[in-house]
Amino acid sequence: MDERISLDYGSGGKKTSQLIDEIILPLLGGPELSELGDAAVLDGAEKLVFSTDSFVVSPYFFPGGDIGKLSVCGTVNDVSMQGGDARYLSLSFIIEEGLPMADLRRIAASIAETAKKAGVRIVTGDTKVVERGKGDGIYLNTAGIGTLHHPGLSINNIRPGDKVILSGTAGDHGAAVMLARNSDMLKGELLSDCALLKEPAMALSELGDGLKVMRDPTRGGIANALCEFAEGRPFSIRLDEGSIPVDPAVASACDILGLDPLYCANEGKLIAVVSADKAELAVDILKRFEVSEGAAVIGEVRDEYPGKVLVRTALGSSRIVAKLTGAQLPRIC
Amino acid sequence: MDERISLDYGSGGKKTSQLIDEIILPLLGGPELSELGDAAVLDGAEKLVFSTDSFVVSPYFFPGGDIGKLSVCGTVNDVSMQGGDARYLSLSFIIEEGLPMADLRRIAASIAETAKKAGVRIVTGDTKVVERGKGDGIYLNTAGIGTLHHPGLSINNIRPGDKVILSGTAGDHGAAVMLARNSDMLKGELLSDCALLKEPAMALSELGDGLKVMRDPTRGGIANALCEFAEGRPFSIRLDEGSIPVDPAVASACDILGLDPLYCANEGKLIAVVSADKAELAVDILKRFEVSEGAAVIGEVRDEYPGKVLVRTALGSSRIVAKLTGAQLPRIC
Repeated sequence: MDERISLDYGSGGKKTSQLIDEIILPLLGGPELSELGDAAVLDGAEKLVFSTDSFVVSPYFFPGGDIGKLSVCGTVNDVSMQGGDARYLSLSFIIEEGLPMADLRRIAASIAETAKKAGVRIVTGDTKVVERGKGDGIYLNTAGIGTLHHPGLSINNIRPGDKVILSGTAGDHGAAVMLARNSDMLKGELLSDCALLKEPAMALSELGDGLKVMRDPTRGGIANALCEFAEGRPFSIRLDEGSIPVDPAVASACDILGLDPLYCANEGKLIAVVSADKAELAVDILKRFEVSEGAAVIGEVRDEYPGKVLVRTALGSSRIVAKLTGAQLPRIC
Repeated sequence: MDERISLDYGSGGKKTSQLIDEIILPLLGGPELSELGDAAVLDGAEKLVFSTDSFVVSPYFFPGGDIGKLSVCGTVNDVSMQGGDARYLSLSFIIEEGLPMADLRRIAASIAETAKKAGVRIVTGDTKVVERGKGDGIYLNTAGIGTLHHPGLSINNIRPGDKVILSGTAGDHGAAVMLARNSDMLKGELLSDCALLKEPAMALSELGDGLKVMRDPTRGGIANALCEFAEGRPFSIRLDEGSIPVDPAVASACDILGLDPLYCANEGKLIAVVSADKAELAVDILKRFEVSEGAAVIGEVRDEYPGKVLVRTALGSSRIVAKLTGAQLPRIC
């Protein structure tokens, strides 16, 4: 094969077949993908959970992960947050002419490894190639189908008194990617948290109706996810600044870069809103898994200041957490 | 709203919400999308058909369609070709900074109109924005879920004696897009065939086991699709050149551009391989629908020259149709 991707690999002809036969199928192929039909035929279920994300992260290799791992974790996590048991993924490449074949192999291998860990099969896909200067190495899209494992999760379930739980440290992915992009300082100390949340999310089902809603706080971070919960609702969410776990290296990096860890993307953390009586159990369940062993209650739902998210600082004062207004972190995922 | 998309619209924050609230939801929103969860919860079925495609067509508005219409037709058609009744779509935007907001609105409106016609709901989505020079206006991805309407369609069903049917003229989409890109001649005379094949594909179910396999010959055209059928199989496919419908304007454009209509992309045509005794009925069924009223038998499956696709010319000689070797038509879909 050539050392770099040329436009010919997107023609749908011989080179496309070569790419599929030599890289895609050996690494990613299962029975459905190998049929190479226009679509895959799959076993279904009464209720499905369906999600999609495109991934445009720059750089596409970053400390702690790469765009391939991210593309599987991102969509599997989205399905998990909605109470789904992720089963199938579609995978679509938009490759810029000139991408080193070795990078493509490494990304495909990373997708394969992460999909295996997640217990999902890649069953259908697509490959497009765009001219040099019309992309940025590689963009990916995944869509995921899961069976519904825990029905009824919704922001509408949230009530004053509920507790807000975060499964670990805040802002690792955003800080790691920004640092990889912008600075030679601190490199190697900071890793993206990019990881699968399927196991802890499914385990939280033990809480029954006590589990109100889950969300993985990616773009816009914890701040944005909680603002979306509170926006236009008859309650506020109050966080305790001191209880939010932040890795010291992330805190330092955020200081240098002028970022706030609350707004930095996470790619392996979940927020769960749970009834107060189930909060301790929820933290215990999360601590069973390495990916969520840093779980903590970080705040609660209150019936004052409707629609707002507030942070109580160490000094006892409170500040309002607003939705992100600008592009603090472009191309973070 | 701003006149052009800036990076802020991809931040996941206020501008992203504005984009979703003012353009995406009013045009595309149904009950699932409006929930704005990480994923949609859907009614399932025992057997599902799942497909995905990314769309990078240049230019994104072309005679007879646009990238939005294409992104719905493309994935719905792929689901239809596998015997699926397409129900749900995911939709993901990768927008280049600077895209005129008016273009985005027009594309979103086109997606909405086509989805309505197709009877599919857009239930989950994503929006990313990349810097100027890292994209080309807009790329789209759709993934589609259908219920299985006609099980068992597969290349493995093809037998010598079967007939090959094409639902209309060859090469319209490829020729129209190439002309839009490369020439001021003939403009306006040529339209892409971009259209939904759901109705005729589902109607062909009437053939029962007589329907062997269907394929929509997009990238690489009819030649490539048939080569994929024959490759490594114990039969050949012989086409009759004179029986392949080609629009005279497409024939002229192909002459000018040095293209072969057999290799030009179609976005609203299907190939069906059917048992000989059902061929007439298949053509009659297809002729019931405007989109496939030009249906014709264009060839047959034979037990000689295994693995090959041949065309018998008007003069009675035969030539081999090989799989596309280069990127004859980059960014056609």
